[in-house]
Amino acid sequence: MTWSKKNNSNFRTETVAGGGLLSRRNFITNAATGSAVFLPMSYAAAESFEGVPETWLTKGGEFSNYGMPPDSGQHPIRWISNHPAVPGEGVTWTPHHQLQGSITPNGLHFERHHNGVPHIEAATWELALHGKLAKPTALSLNDLHRLPMHSETLFIECGGNSNAMWRDQPIQTAAGYIHGLLSCAEWTGVKLSHVLELAGIDPDATWVIADGLDSSGVTVSIPLEKALDDVLIGLYQNGEPVRPSQGYPARLVVPGWEGITHVKWLRSIMLTDKPLMSKFDSVSYTDLMLDGKFNRFSFVMEVKSFITQPSPGYELQQKGLYEIRGLAWSGAAPITRVQVSADGGSSWTDAELQSPVLANSLTRFRVPWNWTGSPATLLSRATDSLGNIQPLRSEIINNKGGNSYYHYNGTTVWSVDEQGGVRHVYI
Amino acid sequence: MTWSKKNNSNFRTETVAGGGLLSRRNFITNAATGSAVFLPMSYAAAESFEGVPETWLTKGGEFSNYGMPPDSGQHPIRWISNHPAVPGEGVTWTPHHQLQGSITPNGLHFERHHNGVPHIEAATWELALHGKLAKPTALSLNDLHRLPMHSETLFIECGGNSNAMWRDQPIQTAAGYIHGLLSCAEWTGVKLSHVLELAGIDPDATWVIADGLDSSGVTVSIPLEKALDDVLIGLYQNGEPVRPSQGYPARLVVPGWEGITHVKWLRSIMLTDKPLMSKFDSVSYTDLMLDGKFNRFSFVMEVKSFITQPSPGYELQQKGLYEIRGLAWSGAAPITRVQVSADGGSSWTDAELQSPVLANSLTRFRVPWNWTGSPATLLSRATDSLGNIQPLRSEIINNKGGNSYYHYNGTTVWSVDEQGGVRHVYI
Repeated sequence: MTWSKKNNSNFRTETVAGGGLLSRRNFITNAATGSAVFLPMSYAAAESFEGVPETWLTKGGEFSNYGMPPDSGQHPIRWISNHPAVPGEGVTWTPHHQLQGSITPNGLHFERHHNGVPHIEAATWELALHGKLAKPTALSLNDLHRLPMHSETLFIECGGNSNAMWRDQPIQTAAGYIHGLLSCAEWTGVKLSHVLELAGIDPDATWVIADGLDSSGVTVSIPLEKALDDVLIGLYQNGEPVRPSQGYPARLVVPGWEGITHVKWLRSIMLTDKPLMSKFDSVSYTDLMLDGKFNRFSFVMEVKSFITQPSPGYELQQKGLYEIRGLAWSGAAPITRVQVSADGGSSWTDAELQSPVLANSLTRFRVPWNWTGSPATLLSRATDSLGNIQPLRSEIINNKGGNSYYHYNGTTVWSVDEQGGVRHVYI
Repeated sequence: MTWSKKNNSNFRTETVAGGGLLSRRNFITNAATGSAVFLPMSYAAAESFEGVPETWLTKGGEFSNYGMPPDSGQHPIRWISNHPAVPGEGVTWTPHHQLQGSITPNGLHFERHHNGVPHIEAATWELALHGKLAKPTALSLNDLHRLPMHSETLFIECGGNSNAMWRDQPIQTAAGYIHGLLSCAEWTGVKLSHVLELAGIDPDATWVIADGLDSSGVTVSIPLEKALDDVLIGLYQNGEPVRPSQGYPARLVVPGWEGITHVKWLRSIMLTDKPLMSKFDSVSYTDLMLDGKFNRFSFVMEVKSFITQPSPGYELQQKGLYEIRGLAWSGAAPITRVQVSADGGSSWTDAELQSPVLANSLTRFRVPWNWTGSPATLLSRATDSLGNIQPLRSEIINNKGGNSYYHYNGTTVWSVDEQGGVRHVYI
């Protein structure tokens, strides 16, 4: 797919930063003046349906109980990266280079499974609450359904998302296959704080150990303070029951924190006075720092952004006006600003943020851009309301060293050549 | 499915209105005191996985390019009501009695097709802009993609939704099959105002005539004032390209207005100085009033709500605490209040509204309820920020007469009997 094949845009434009970035106002007002021709007068009698293929106007397809996208080869799909010998071990990537807005449809939500999707019977499933509680108990799905529910639109990002950015050379692939272990949905469930309070929290409890029911034994330690703040026992995703591939009948939803904490096929919540130091606490999702120590329990996914369009695979077919679009998020605080540069960071302009901007959600940003046909170097940089600013890649490498595999939140740069080709580069 | 089979909740509760309605605070604080037993101490060693079926712990299912819900017979589906002789003529219903939150997943978004789903090639599709414009033109999908995009979370409700409520006797079916021609999604597209301004609007243009490409010839007249306010050329639904069943490659999205104006498979936008008075303007979606005249062009979907849980088909299996949940919306202004009654309207309590409350979106409401085992009569009543209050059914029948088929926005009442059965009643 390309953005356009017709050479029909010759707006007069007014630059507000280097490289042809415009204010959104310019895009509309300049083009609306008589001084610019928008498009050729090529069509004047559409109501006749002249030229419409007969096949478009015959009786159409029937209804279905559950709608699916077309099997046309055109609709976005998730790419799969899995272990050759263990088909259920791996990931699927959300194809952000082909999506718009901020919600990820359930069929395209990323997955990270360690040993496939277990089949769980909801009728006999229970969630155990035990450890440092006055009244250890078990809740059935029906029990959970009677309790007060809460909904929030939240991103989930794997701690290993964007790990290719730690490599010495920039990988050449689509934006969704660099940053696609990231999705956003409206999650509905019961507040973990509520069920823990009902069960009576012992005064010396400080940690929650969450166990999933898949055969790879995912067990994660989460500070009780977070559990009592905003963690959900997630039962619904974008309105419908959580699917098996997302943790049916229940998954933990831990706003703003790394994906591994969002334990799927939730089986057990145990309160303790120390972390378990499971392999997911102590080996995976830890970062080797410059001083030779490992950073554990980083949890919060830090402020980050990238440009989704244009991006590798989406070539510019003509000079003229485009809209640069991307996603920004922070697990620490709501996004307050996204700056975009078309000249490799020499100058920046503020992008428009899709409203409402929600905490721990993806924020879509957009800025108009007049591509003159010269080479351009595009990147975005996000800021959250705590003043955290997304680092340049060079800054994160300098600060953390190059030995990490997880938690990359630096910038991503796309280089546009004179033919409109887009490549991933480091600057 | 039932809400619970175990008799394990005997909270001490404090009533804030008739019929056992509680404040949300009561639900949590009362239950957390030592005076009430939450659940029996039946589970104390979950980490052993004792009793977990072997099949749950074996290697799980593999990845897929596009995720689907399970084929278990348990996952919500749309019911289909179609013409026996014309399978593509009819509707599918969103099963709101089985959903939570406010977003409708794309596979469960309602549909109303007049002659099935046409197959349209995006590569040769164009949107014609003509009539009273300085520069009539045609836009390809690539052209549209280069223009500034805008996203909003919006409900779409068919003007004929809830038409069973006009019948003399209450129909006995699930809530989703009474009110399910209603869904909510994040829509992304290009503002119609933008492309019309680029094409140069003639000073005497006052109406927009929108044509769809399906063979039933859906053509709708919309005041230019609305088109310039907030109408979108919708290209993406919950992040992914609009599916064929929802109007691919483009549909009109007309915030807060009746579904027929959201023309699917959009082909042509013509500016005129009068409405076309197509059959969809002048015959369908009009209401015969008490004075013998037809009300046309009502457009705005007025303030409305209904309770999704409990509702017919979802029986209460035991006395005790529940959460009453439902949906409220108004095409006129944001929802500011939803009142719930458990005693047929003698007393009311305010429900909690899911935040953020967005204009022209579905708003989830929730209120805790202690069911004592006595018969109860449940209903909800919504108010928007313009002060519009949802009428009781008796009020709407008195005001509009009983000859309408469209635009029912009165209350819906569920009767709970001593066995916990739930039926639809008129009061």
